Amino acid sequence: MWSQQTIDRIQPVDPRLLAQAQARLDRLTKPIGSLGRLEELAARYVMITGEMMPKVPHGAVFTFAADHGVTVEGVSAYPSAVTPQMVLNFLRGGAGVNVLARHVGLDVRVVDIGVAFDFEAAPGLVRKKVMPGTKNLLVESAMSTTQAEQAIQVGIELAAEAAQEGIGLIGTGEMGIGNTTASSAIAAVMTGRPAFEVTGRGTGIDDASHVHKIDVIQRALAFHRPDSTHVMEVLAKVGGLEIGGLAGLMLGAAAARIPVVLDGFIAGAAALIAVGLQPRCKDYLIASHRSVERGHQAILDHLGLKPLFDLDLRLGEGTGACLVMSLVFAAIKILTEMATFDEAGVSECNT
Amino acid sequence: MWSQQTIDRIQPVDPRLLAQAQARLDRLTKPIGSLGRLEELAARYVMITGEMMPKVPHGAVFTFAADHGVTVEGVSAYPSAVTPQMVLNFLRGGAGVNVLARHVGLDVRVVDIGVAFDFEAAPGLVRKKVMPGTKNLLVESAMSTTQAEQAIQVGIELAAEAAQEGIGLIGTGEMGIGNTTASSAIAAVMTGRPAFEVTGRGTGIDDASHVHKIDVIQRALAFHRPDSTHVMEVLAKVGGLEIGGLAGLMLGAAAARIPVVLDGFIAGAAALIAVGLQPRCKDYLIASHRSVERGHQAILDHLGLKPLFDLDLRLGEGTGACLVMSLVFAAIKILTEMATFDEAGVSECNT
Repeated sequence: MWSQQTIDRIQPVDPRLLAQAQARLDRLTKPIGSLGRLEELAARYVMITGEMMPKVPHGAVFTFAADHGVTVEGVSAYPSAVTPQMVLNFLRGGAGVNVLARHVGLDVRVVDIGVAFDFEAAPGLVRKKVMPGTKNLLVESAMSTTQAEQAIQVGIELAAEAAQEGIGLIGTGEMGIGNTTASSAIAAVMTGRPAFEVTGRGTGIDDASHVHKIDVIQRALAFHRPDSTHVMEVLAKVGGLEIGGLAGLMLGAAAARIPVVLDGFIAGAAALIAVGLQPRCKDYLIASHRSVERGHQAILDHLGLKPLFDLDLRLGEGTGACLVMSLVFAAIKILTEMATFDEAGVSECNT
Repeated sequence: MWSQQTIDRIQPVDPRLLAQAQARLDRLTKPIGSLGRLEELAARYVMITGEMMPKVPHGAVFTFAADHGVTVEGVSAYPSAVTPQMVLNFLRGGAGVNVLARHVGLDVRVVDIGVAFDFEAAPGLVRKKVMPGTKNLLVESAMSTTQAEQAIQVGIELAAEAAQEGIGLIGTGEMGIGNTTASSAIAAVMTGRPAFEVTGRGTGIDDASHVHKIDVIQRALAFHRPDSTHVMEVLAKVGGLEIGGLAGLMLGAAAARIPVVLDGFIAGAAALIAVGLQPRCKDYLIASHRSVERGHQAILDHLGLKPLFDLDLRLGEGTGACLVMSLVFAAIKILTEMATFDEAGVSECNT
């Protein structure tokens, strides 16, 4: 059942497409390069999809929800009950990601990949529970390797289904009380940095709790000794189900040549897993914003991704991704709707 | 005819409104402050307009176009003919600002305040020509003080009309070959910095032309000796008609309690004029992006404004403003559409 085939199918991107897109951008009625990172986004969209004059695609944000056994250690400012409560809030359309997705014209798909609560079927809810929350990563593996593979498989399949539906831009989102702890642990292992450098305050813990959270992560890493070259093992030992789902979503999207807009810190940890499994996946990823969460910059540096925004966001859910998906749409329209110098009868540069 | 009355009518903003808006933002289903600068935008919109639960307003970008006599000195990479050519491109909807305004759902109003070309009436073109381009600021005043006042008056009246139409968010745009030279001269005078610190490459001049451009500005400033405490004199001696129009637009919008989203460097120079005439105007301005153009950061520092984006833009026209106007709409929706903890039945923070 484990889709190594999908992961192997991911192709390298072709930089000639980037150059062809830039050549068109350079004929549009503006000084060369004057739309900066919008031009970069347009050219990357062309390179990833292979469409030279792309239509604005339909976009969807996948918000994976899961619980974390490590919350019993007191690492979060909120109780675990908030995870299912927020899932219900997503389904009613009242959360931040719903508001921003409506603003931008995106679907929100909420994926229960591991919430410790039995949801009834509901429109917008994708029920793919691998297990009802991870175990406490401080004292045992968060999940088995088989469960980690299942989580990744969920993401891969959702991306494949999205591709079949014709979705052309995917955003990542998540909800899971405790998931910055798992993400910091993954970031420490995969970037090789000490835990304190990649551990922040999550939803907003105080100084004492922050010190305690770093200690929990350090002890977990000393106990598990995860090896960054065994990526599935890292995910199983100190990861989270939503993190595995997101990593799978990225891999599945890359296999289908769909660009993926990353949200913040948790998405970054998932990207470390995805790129660890398949380095080619990196070229399909667009970093949206730099999160306030300590450690996000370290992840972005490790991946070689430069975010578009720095808006002091730290909500997650996919909120930052939504805003940058709108920028991707804007960039596509720049490429395809602006007049060229010839079409508009505008004189070109003197030099 | 000179609307000192309008300028005097601008009221100080009331920080209690900011606190009231933040109090609602803090009850929404997210960790406190976790939507960062989106929350700041929402609260500022409330403070400026006085509406606690604002509807998403209709927005318009005003793109003022004018020519500059100083172009005979070889300060730009493009010929002056591009100014009217681009105006026609705006009117046909083929320019960058048109594409981004359509993306965001904004009107574009193109204002001929001083182009050296006779346009026929056309939908979307506002004909308010004060004079057909400024004079060469290296050898004489760019315009008379009366003409400078007329330019400001055009902007004030357009803002007043927009307010009557019910427009609730205004963006600034401009087109004028040579206008970075005038803007750098204004920036040097108003911020007190040497010309080389606030003079960039505009549409993309080479090193030799850049050195020449700085020299032209230095000589103009040595010749005119403009006094930063006599703001109208600064605008008349080394300014531009579109810069005056934009300054008037800001003042008129502030008088009507309409927030103004600044575009890049030229808008910044106009804001120096507007805030120089009425310091209270500053609190009605939202900086959209940090332009590549050297000197923009110095202007933002002087005004005490922090931009939302840094996307390496340097096109002008209002392109950066459009993108941030979309963020303002998003911020309003966050404030008014997100569920509160009570409404959603979500548990609050443990601490």
